[in-house]
Amino acid sequence: MDRFMLAAIEEARQGLGEGGIPIGSVLVHDGKILGRGHNRRVQKGSAILHGEMDALENAGRLPASVYRESVLYTTLSPCPMCSGAILLYGIPRVVIGENQTFMGEENLLHSRGVQIEVLQSEECIDLMRRFIAEKPQLWNEDIGV
Amino acid sequence: MDRFMLAAIEEARQGLGEGGIPIGSVLVHDGKILGRGHNRRVQKGSAILHGEMDALENAGRLPASVYRESVLYTTLSPCPMCSGAILLYGIPRVVIGENQTFMGEENLLHSRGVQIEVLQSEECIDLMRRFIAEKPQLWNEDIGV
Repeated sequence: MDRFMLAAIEEARQGLGEGGIPIGSVLVHDGKILGRGHNRRVQKGSAILHGEMDALENAGRLPASVYRESVLYTTLSPCPMCSGAILLYGIPRVVIGENQTFMGEENLLHSRGVQIEVLQSEECIDLMRRFIAEKPQLWNEDIGV
Repeated sequence: MDRFMLAAIEEARQGLGEGGIPIGSVLVHDGKILGRGHNRRVQKGSAILHGEMDALENAGRLPASVYRESVLYTTLSPCPMCSGAILLYGIPRVVIGENQTFMGEENLLHSRGVQIEVLQSEECIDLMRRFIAEKPQLWNEDIGV
């Protein structure tokens, strides 16, 4: 598998090990990871640090020109908030681990010209399936259900 | 003016005083402010702490049922990221200080059933006009331009 998706999965597993929600993400520019992160709802009591948001935050302040040549990798289909962040910064391409356990705003992203690739990784699906089965309430909280 | 919009403007002015971008927000439930915040791009080197996101973060982890009875007040029309957060959590109503200096994703919010009220506050417009004239590059960075 792509080494950047492997890095995103590594982040997801780290989050799981911390007692958190196993979703990870990396922001890549010019073959280099600018920021990596994972969901920190549990770890930081955060309502906004989804994996993608954490990766964007850890990448720090960047000029628009960098985002516009970047790729965001995420282990799970991005929710409305993370999709909105992708649109805000004009990130042109998103590689998604899976969208079987949760379907985010892929249609919206597509309609705005964002290129989407879904890998349907069994590893990503398995991570989320187990987590959702174990902690359904925590998962629902994370997606506003 | 509504005391909650006054609180959002107070947040915006606090941000300006810190050398930041003057946008503030409060999350209100049952007549009480659950979280308040302002843009912290400059103060925290943050790419994700727009005013609305900061208010949501400061409100902490909340069950879906609370968001669904809440109102988000923001001094400026919400960008794609903040609009996405509103959609993620199913916040049903957004009161906006102004949309003259920046038009966010009001159409998207409306199409998803979010009730929007725009006050066109001269105070909010004036805050942003002065800021954009003084620091156009910082403003562009904040909206990914």
